[in-house]
Amino acid sequence: MTANETKERLSRLKELLAEVSDLRNAGAVLYWDKQTQMPRGGAPARADHLTTIRRLAHERFTAPEIGELLAELEDYERSLPYDSDDASLLRVTRREYDQATRVPKDLVARMSQAGAEAYERWLVARSERRFGPFAPSLQQIVDLSRELGSALSGPGADPLDALIDLSEPGLTAAALDKLFAELRDGLVPLAGAISEKSSEGRDAPFRQRFEPERQLELARAAVGAIGFDLDDRGRQALSVHPFSTSFSPDDTRITTRTNENWLGPCLFGLLHEAGHGTYMQGIPVRFRRGPLGDGASAGLHESQSRLWENVVGRSREFWAFFLPVARAFFPAQLGSVTVEEAYVAANVVRPSLIRVEADEVTYNLHIMLRFELERAVFSGDLAVADLAEAWNDKVHSYLGITPPDDLTGVLQDIHWTERFGGSFQGYTIGNVAGVALYKKAAEANPGMEQDWARGDFSSLLGWMQTNVHAHGAKFKPEEVLRKATGDGLTAGPYLDHIREKYTGLYDLDA
Amino acid sequence: MTANETKERLSRLKELLAEVSDLRNAGAVLYWDKQTQMPRGGAPARADHLTTIRRLAHERFTAPEIGELLAELEDYERSLPYDSDDASLLRVTRREYDQATRVPKDLVARMSQAGAEAYERWLVARSERRFGPFAPSLQQIVDLSRELGSALSGPGADPLDALIDLSEPGLTAAALDKLFAELRDGLVPLAGAISEKSSEGRDAPFRQRFEPERQLELARAAVGAIGFDLDDRGRQALSVHPFSTSFSPDDTRITTRTNENWLGPCLFGLLHEAGHGTYMQGIPVRFRRGPLGDGASAGLHESQSRLWENVVGRSREFWAFFLPVARAFFPAQLGSVTVEEAYVAANVVRPSLIRVEADEVTYNLHIMLRFELERAVFSGDLAVADLAEAWNDKVHSYLGITPPDDLTGVLQDIHWTERFGGSFQGYTIGNVAGVALYKKAAEANPGMEQDWARGDFSSLLGWMQTNVHAHGAKFKPEEVLRKATGDGLTAGPYLDHIREKYTGLYDLDA
Repeated sequence: MTANETKERLSRLKELLAEVSDLRNAGAVLYWDKQTQMPRGGAPARADHLTTIRRLAHERFTAPEIGELLAELEDYERSLPYDSDDASLLRVTRREYDQATRVPKDLVARMSQAGAEAYERWLVARSERRFGPFAPSLQQIVDLSRELGSALSGPGADPLDALIDLSEPGLTAAALDKLFAELRDGLVPLAGAISEKSSEGRDAPFRQRFEPERQLELARAAVGAIGFDLDDRGRQALSVHPFSTSFSPDDTRITTRTNENWLGPCLFGLLHEAGHGTYMQGIPVRFRRGPLGDGASAGLHESQSRLWENVVGRSREFWAFFLPVARAFFPAQLGSVTVEEAYVAANVVRPSLIRVEADEVTYNLHIMLRFELERAVFSGDLAVADLAEAWNDKVHSYLGITPPDDLTGVLQDIHWTERFGGSFQGYTIGNVAGVALYKKAAEANPGMEQDWARGDFSSLLGWMQTNVHAHGAKFKPEEVLRKATGDGLTAGPYLDHIREKYTGLYDLDA
Repeated sequence: MTANETKERLSRLKELLAEVSDLRNAGAVLYWDKQTQMPRGGAPARADHLTTIRRLAHERFTAPEIGELLAELEDYERSLPYDSDDASLLRVTRREYDQATRVPKDLVARMSQAGAEAYERWLVARSERRFGPFAPSLQQIVDLSRELGSALSGPGADPLDALIDLSEPGLTAAALDKLFAELRDGLVPLAGAISEKSSEGRDAPFRQRFEPERQLELARAAVGAIGFDLDDRGRQALSVHPFSTSFSPDDTRITTRTNENWLGPCLFGLLHEAGHGTYMQGIPVRFRRGPLGDGASAGLHESQSRLWENVVGRSREFWAFFLPVARAFFPAQLGSVTVEEAYVAANVVRPSLIRVEADEVTYNLHIMLRFELERAVFSGDLAVADLAEAWNDKVHSYLGITPPDDLTGVLQDIHWTERFGGSFQGYTIGNVAGVALYKKAAEANPGMEQDWARGDFSSLLGWMQTNVHAHGAKFKPEEVLRKATGDGLTAGPYLDHIREKYTGLYDLDA
């Protein structure tokens, strides 16, 4: 092929991918509006709009022309350095194209139908607070998920690997086994030691009446301070479940919710979403309208949200800066609270049954038990019918508490109504990778935390922009971590950080 | 063709039209977000999203398959009553398909490019407050608009008719000539008689300081009272230029703006948009996802907005009901204002240079002069280069005032940067048709205005729902009017109403 022919094909491919990207982003705008503003009556029409937009995006992305262009551009790709933009675009597009075209259309339809049924059965089971009514539907979801995994990975391979690979390119169940083994050894004893201490009253400063509209203003001040641009490149809204989304690096949206008797959900919720938001705002504009204009994986995305929510937002230095700000908003509630008391209030550890309410120490145990159960079902060691009991056993063994019913146990997450396998690991990868990246940023910027105490977060954000955001989706998460930290996905830095932090906070024996 | 084959083709056609409708509505959501919420940085990406969505909608709607299905269903259409849903769907789809496929692709591209240039030149001309810099661009727009009109209408026909037909199916320039002649004879003397009286201080009650957020609450109370559903089927937001849009009858959105020193723009602006909104909320849900799920024309749409803004919102009876509501929001400003004073304040007539600021009496004169100028340019009687002067002459002859410069004259509207011809008549049709419909509703509901004074607008809204909204886009505007009023588009009822109202308000010789 002549250089000109190559150029033409590449430009045609980029044109087709830009169209797909436009459709996906249009879908994201429709979803944003749906969650933040749409009146109840709009639901049926919005479902139609989203279905059509998503179907068209899928049709256009899986069009044979894209496959042909990818094949014709293989030699060109091989001629380029691995980390060049064009090689990365071709590599990432090929991976996503292969995934999208490997799944038979009828399987997608069957999963969608089974998912709708499973959701209904899940609601029934939740209302009865017992797993029984959901079990047959879940069995169907398990079977279909296995079929999906096999379609994606080909015969002989582990279908769970393929499901994990969908959100964490390159990651395997075996690698997760290893990661969770390290975490289990470190976290179970730590959580146990903390649970022997009382957390009574520790979060009293944050458990007062805080006027919701002012909470929002305060939370916006916090995310503005860490460097999320809410003025020219972002927006904030309320939603039942906080989320973040992005239609371009320069239009990134975040939501939170408020609890008028607790400062935590609004403030830390918005910091979390703004963490995702900094990632999206940090994606180079040249990657806009294509598959590279995104984060590297769900887990790496979560590394940024956990970083700003937990590592920064729950640090002593952050509160040294932020407490005076918060006092100005809430003088009556926070006027006599000290920095140390705020720091303690931001870091209460209490073993709990519900994942989404879990603290920084026990959160990963919730993820771990889900992964272990998925693995056991996939390997045939555990029957779906026995899942509720197995769940309760694991909760007891890791957290020392037992769910009183299945609503607070195996029925708590919506994820398994859609797919079984590969949906949860991102949260733990985020916790672990977030700390590993932070440690490297701190090495490169000695005294960085003292900047935080003055309200200056630019060295941390700048380091993330250069070492994580700037790559967009060019690399696999493991590759990004190796480039940025010199190491792959490993629990070491995270466990050190958590142990040191909570040994101090809870006055544990070091 | 067997009945089954017919059924299959009809169902395939509806499926394709549903997809087009989904894309158009998705585009409308993107536009809503852009105008009400998008940060500045989002503009380039949003332009891409909208371009792609609109291009796909156009491609899908003009696909040969739709033309083939329409041809195959011609016999079926002829076998049905004219006003049946299916016959109407086929008839309206055929009209829109013919329009969309008659315009050559390259003409669309040339118009879009010329429009972008014209917009830039228009901005330059506005900054210099003189027509000169815009004139050559406008000449291009005129030539292209003529070409568009000819492509739409075929050789020999009047291209201006085709442009008018785009937004008012069935209406011609000759019919507009007749309408404007009636209006000219009635309104020019009336405006002249009023201008001899002083309007000084008449709107003082509304020209005070009103806190913007409370203005919005008050305006929402007003549109809720007239029957626009803001809770389950609608939303309100702020935007620089008020507008309304709809993604389904059950998801209709309206905006307004506030002026902290004047109650009018927020309140009457939202009533106006809610008028459009009642039309959209009144479209039967069975028309959703197809070409019938809309109003009959831009002019009929405007009939509903003008009805609620002017006929109702500026009536004595409305203020008998609404003044106590407004007083509760603004006791200091309105506590001592009487119903009569509020009614007077809502109906101040002052000849003005700017169309969008014009009152109920002089508004149509602004539209008329634009139409006359377009007609003169199309007939060759007026050169584009002479447009500014001709504009000023007409303003003087109809309103008795002269623009000090072209910014307040020929440069005031954005419409001509996109197309010349057929863009303005909807406003006047709305004024005229709105009153004609109101008169019929009043005949059918004796004492209706007394209901308004008690805050009950249900008989008027119900009549409009039955006689206008329920048809969706099945009929041409003239057909809707004939069905509803027994008469076509005529200025009589409007002129009677306006004469009577302002003779009283300004104490004129009857």
